[in-house]
Amino acid sequence: MKRRRVLQLGAALGGGLLARHEASARELGRPLGPYGQRSPFEKSVRWTRESKTPEAGSSFTPLAESQGILTPSSLHYERHHAGIPNIDPARHRLLIQGMVDRPLLLTVDEIKRLPSVSRILLMECGGNSGSEWAATTGPTVQRSHGLASCSEWTGVSLRLLLEEVGVRSGATWMLAEGADAGRMQRSIPLAKAMDDMILAYGQNGEALRPEQGYPLRLVVPGWEGATHVKWLQRIVLADQPYQSRDETSKYTDLMPDGKARQFTFPMEAKSVITYPSGGQTLPGPGAYELTGLAWSGRGRVERVDVTTDGGRSWQEARLQEPRLRLAFVRFRLAWPWDGRETTIASRCVDETGYVQPTREALIAVRRVNSGFHFNGIKHWKVSTNGSVTNV
Amino acid sequence: MKRRRVLQLGAALGGGLLARHEASARELGRPLGPYGQRSPFEKSVRWTRESKTPEAGSSFTPLAESQGILTPSSLHYERHHAGIPNIDPARHRLLIQGMVDRPLLLTVDEIKRLPSVSRILLMECGGNSGSEWAATTGPTVQRSHGLASCSEWTGVSLRLLLEEVGVRSGATWMLAEGADAGRMQRSIPLAKAMDDMILAYGQNGEALRPEQGYPLRLVVPGWEGATHVKWLQRIVLADQPYQSRDETSKYTDLMPDGKARQFTFPMEAKSVITYPSGGQTLPGPGAYELTGLAWSGRGRVERVDVTTDGGRSWQEARLQEPRLRLAFVRFRLAWPWDGRETTIASRCVDETGYVQPTREALIAVRRVNSGFHFNGIKHWKVSTNGSVTNV
Repeated sequence: MKRRRVLQLGAALGGGLLARHEASARELGRPLGPYGQRSPFEKSVRWTRESKTPEAGSSFTPLAESQGILTPSSLHYERHHAGIPNIDPARHRLLIQGMVDRPLLLTVDEIKRLPSVSRILLMECGGNSGSEWAATTGPTVQRSHGLASCSEWTGVSLRLLLEEVGVRSGATWMLAEGADAGRMQRSIPLAKAMDDMILAYGQNGEALRPEQGYPLRLVVPGWEGATHVKWLQRIVLADQPYQSRDETSKYTDLMPDGKARQFTFPMEAKSVITYPSGGQTLPGPGAYELTGLAWSGRGRVERVDVTTDGGRSWQEARLQEPRLRLAFVRFRLAWPWDGRETTIASRCVDETGYVQPTREALIAVRRVNSGFHFNGIKHWKVSTNGSVTNV
Repeated sequence: MKRRRVLQLGAALGGGLLARHEASARELGRPLGPYGQRSPFEKSVRWTRESKTPEAGSSFTPLAESQGILTPSSLHYERHHAGIPNIDPARHRLLIQGMVDRPLLLTVDEIKRLPSVSRILLMECGGNSGSEWAATTGPTVQRSHGLASCSEWTGVSLRLLLEEVGVRSGATWMLAEGADAGRMQRSIPLAKAMDDMILAYGQNGEALRPEQGYPLRLVVPGWEGATHVKWLQRIVLADQPYQSRDETSKYTDLMPDGKARQFTFPMEAKSVITYPSGGQTLPGPGAYELTGLAWSGRGRVERVDVTTDGGRSWQEARLQEPRLRLAFVRFRLAWPWDGRETTIASRCVDETGYVQPTREALIAVRRVNSGFHFNGIKHWKVSTNGSVTNV
């Protein structure tokens, strides 16, 4: 950011040059504590649609207040089909069976003794931004894009375990099954398991949170969230997909010709401006820093372009380092707002050269019944009074 | 890890080959939630010494259960001198004054509007491992090394703010003052502020925790924790250090000649094995993965060597990527334990070529009254019954 712009901002800071300084309190504060909680002044929460069945639904990460690239575990998005089971890790088991030489039943402690890996990875629900297919969309970035989060996941390389049980010749798929009441089941190509999947027991430096699959979940880097099966209790190797309820009636993409695409796993390159975004109000013309998040399920984010004039011109945003593969990338751009109405948007380009498409380009190919995998460019309208709204 | 060793481990997994699989419950789980909490089965907490003045003390991160490189904010170590103040961010102000052209009083909202930076950084108390100077040391890695943690910090480049107020010719130091009842004060060379210091309001993707300085703290990459002044309310530029209580009577290193080293800011290269570590018990001979954390306040960790035979031989450990400057680095090494008594230890080498010294080498130079900045190699003894103890 240019010094000129910062000075402009300095001038805009009301009362900033006061020399008076209120003395803070001198009472002794509260003592040290065993497991900390956030300040009672902080109110940011996951948003959930009103529902008669809150056990089967989604909660959305408050991306408007997001910082850096990590999502606090307490605010990581949720998507459950039958509620959050209360699992005692001492009684939980993982069974690996099917086309294997040696079926294996493992305790959580046994899994934790195996060689471990940790990796910072994004996770995005296949249905994230699904409301964008329709004309009426979520009013905030939390509601339009909040089914995406990013954590450091720790666990065991799934490849290590599969080598241990001995994969039989001809096995090409694996079924993953959760211990929730609905028995979430997803089929995943074995090649992905042998590549980079993690049998995770940790998130952001401690045990998985209950709503993230405690004590065990799959992490499938870059692929749609529903494949990251939570409360994992069973892996079955097979020579074909299982065609479970959650990969036939759900998580398929209905095309204009009436056929549905199945097993569309990778989340395509995407980005969204988180500040300023829908529901926020700019206090007045002046210097701002636009910021947002970009990601790609196919690799590294190569570039993020931003428009502040409704798409007439695009500028390259600064990307925060480290720029990790298959993780959130934070972008930033200095923006001197002149107070006129405009629309702002961001466009992600990933290492494969893929360019995040416009909503119109997506709809031209898929129409609006596709439901999942919306990754169109997201515009926010800034009005002359500073209010920011979804377009 | 070699396949042979994994198979060895597989054989050691009691009951691992059972084909029977207990069915999990099918009751509907609990619904979605606004701000998540950990599982009630998880009990890991910060440890605090019994004290009549729990407002002035330390709490230690449970490093034995640490995973990856991040510390959950709820388990980040604490060091307070006058308790945790309860600060309303809407009423909090930061004053920048002294040898500046334009003194500035800023609200938290004004600071949040400025261009931001985020960075994953270690933080270590200057007194971490202080017990290692003595013959009787902490029995666990939590108590011996738990005054170190690692978070993603978000805030404003301090350089940006200082350029805004205009640094007067001759200013070489800055005083930072906290709003706690004790008014923590530390002097920091201005060159560091102009290099990489962050005025932080965020930690791990959300607001700072109260015990980490909510709503504002300094982050001083690689330097001793006490310089990261919490509840920051004032910065004063000067042409000399302030010689505050917290940099004269405390946080100085008493040398054998009776003189004290002052302003010993960077935390030297250090490492510790977190598994297996003091207080843990290995279930029996077999294949294990040793793991631990390494860091250096002077740059990137270049290498970590591990001995499993009391220092006779050293092997290079695998380092987890990304290997960030001034952040925790996770190291791992396959270890087939033959069941005999031994001692294990790790040794960090940083990008400057500095090698973590032995305790004996440190004491030969500083004797044992130095108090702060202990970074000697840490040995754990493994007994034939599998119990691990501090040496």
